Amino acid sequence: MIAKPILPSPFYRLDALSDRWGIDLWVKRDDLIPQWMGGNKVRKNFAILSAACKGDTVPDVLITNGGAESNHARVVALMGAQLGCEVHLALHGNEPENSTVGNSFFYRSAGAVAHYVDSQEIGPTIEHLKQSFAASGKAVCVIPGGGHAPEGVAAYADAVAELPDAPDYIVHASGTGGTQAGLLAGIERQGWSTAVVGVSVARMKQRGIEEVMKLLPADFPEDRVDFRDEYRFGGYEQYSPELMNFVQSVIRAEGIPLDLTYTGKAMFGLAQLVESGEIAAGSRVVFWHTGGLLSLMTAKGVGIS
Amino acid sequence: MIAKPILPSPFYRLDALSDRWGIDLWVKRDDLIPQWMGGNKVRKNFAILSAACKGDTVPDVLITNGGAESNHARVVALMGAQLGCEVHLALHGNEPENSTVGNSFFYRSAGAVAHYVDSQEIGPTIEHLKQSFAASGKAVCVIPGGGHAPEGVAAYADAVAELPDAPDYIVHASGTGGTQAGLLAGIERQGWSTAVVGVSVARMKQRGIEEVMKLLPADFPEDRVDFRDEYRFGGYEQYSPELMNFVQSVIRAEGIPLDLTYTGKAMFGLAQLVESGEIAAGSRVVFWHTGGLLSLMTAKGVGIS
Repeated sequence: MIAKPILPSPFYRLDALSDRWGIDLWVKRDDLIPQWMGGNKVRKNFAILSAACKGDTVPDVLITNGGAESNHARVVALMGAQLGCEVHLALHGNEPENSTVGNSFFYRSAGAVAHYVDSQEIGPTIEHLKQSFAASGKAVCVIPGGGHAPEGVAAYADAVAELPDAPDYIVHASGTGGTQAGLLAGIERQGWSTAVVGVSVARMKQRGIEEVMKLLPADFPEDRVDFRDEYRFGGYEQYSPELMNFVQSVIRAEGIPLDLTYTGKAMFGLAQLVESGEIAAGSRVVFWHTGGLLSLMTAKGVGIS
Repeated sequence: MIAKPILPSPFYRLDALSDRWGIDLWVKRDDLIPQWMGGNKVRKNFAILSAACKGDTVPDVLITNGGAESNHARVVALMGAQLGCEVHLALHGNEPENSTVGNSFFYRSAGAVAHYVDSQEIGPTIEHLKQSFAASGKAVCVIPGGGHAPEGVAAYADAVAELPDAPDYIVHASGTGGTQAGLLAGIERQGWSTAVVGVSVARMKQRGIEEVMKLLPADFPEDRVDFRDEYRFGGYEQYSPELMNFVQSVIRAEGIPLDLTYTGKAMFGLAQLVESGEIAAGSRVVFWHTGGLLSLMTAKGVGIS
């Protein structure tokens, strides 16, 4: 198996934003997990591949899917390279240009084979790849897109134990729901009363809650799944000058990166919840930074101020 | 003063490269210092600004210089923003496009004013800015390009103490010489016999040694300044397909980023020194990663494989 991720990820106070917003704000920098360019997909895929590689058994082929600049695809490609696996990526969106920018540079450097297809062709492409490799006698492991699997949820439940004590809130970017489910499970295990606020980067509320609930025990109280769809800026990979200005204000205040697809929206949501008073002054809040500098770098058509 | 950098930076073994090269290779990830986007310029400029901000005195204006995609300029801009300073950057090279890529995005986000001028206009531009601000009664602090100052050297001498014990070698990218001088001073202070190998990213050997010596005590033995100019790939910001392939092979092996201007050349030099036998099999080597992901992203005209 590959070396373990270097953990815990950094955790420290954001003094300038704490002062500005009147809360006690801390950041958990999963974007700085040292290997595989960091981010929440590292925790998830390390857990998934550890389960897939029992003993000395390593799959011959890894297959997964995502967008053309997927953080998840980059992590699978890099981990697969270290394991000696052949890695195939079924990616929707246009083929990125041949440059050193973004996740695409890293999955290409890792030697992964990228298949750029329309969204509706993702499933058939994976199935076709899987069958053709299996037919030639290769051991194939298909990793769900985004690392959306029980092992990924468990990895985030474990990650909660890296916090020194119970905050009032954890706020994070919530996509397909695995990170949020894991954080909730971890809070439950610690016996904490911390509220987990998942700021949606794509899905509407009802669907988001359903998907998080699917990853939790059947008796988990649904009212604890706080999935906010007010800060989506129109949906996945959509953003506005307002969001851009906000991201730049955080860079200016704290010298930390946020991207426009995930963490920028989550931090924007946090600011709004503080401003509305829903998160009360003086609350201890952990902003869980799930990664995305490489996503920032491939943002398109952005007029910066 | 601004909050301190979160230190020590991560330090861990690179297992795959250790196996491949037959040495005991560790990496010191200064690129992952959490604030201000990390890198060696963070250690240097924090020390410089700490000295410039005695007590509650903060300069009104910070002025520094560098290339249009300077890591140093980015750090000064971000730290200056936190201090509430007006920041002016005299930058040579073409004005970068208005995008979210590279150091330019971060110094723009920080609100710094960039003056793009020819190389020979850097000095006069700084002088003009300095005089005009001083004439209006503002306290001006001019920071040397690259953070090339005694405080920066001292910061790297202190950084050596973050290592758990004495390696046989420290290998790093050496530019204007401040990092190398600091590492040498730190080794001396620890009483270690570690050899420091600075892989030049620009200068020829004689000039490089002279500049490092200027930053060390007068009686420092010159033969301990090991400055290698064989892995420059033609000079500053120059590279070749061979270097690109090498950088990609390291990404594939370890899942860590190297850039084409600094750390890629340093790691290439290390590989060559191992291959030639100058660094003996079994040696314990620390590769000091000084930063540069943002530089990687702005590499121009690169055909990746």
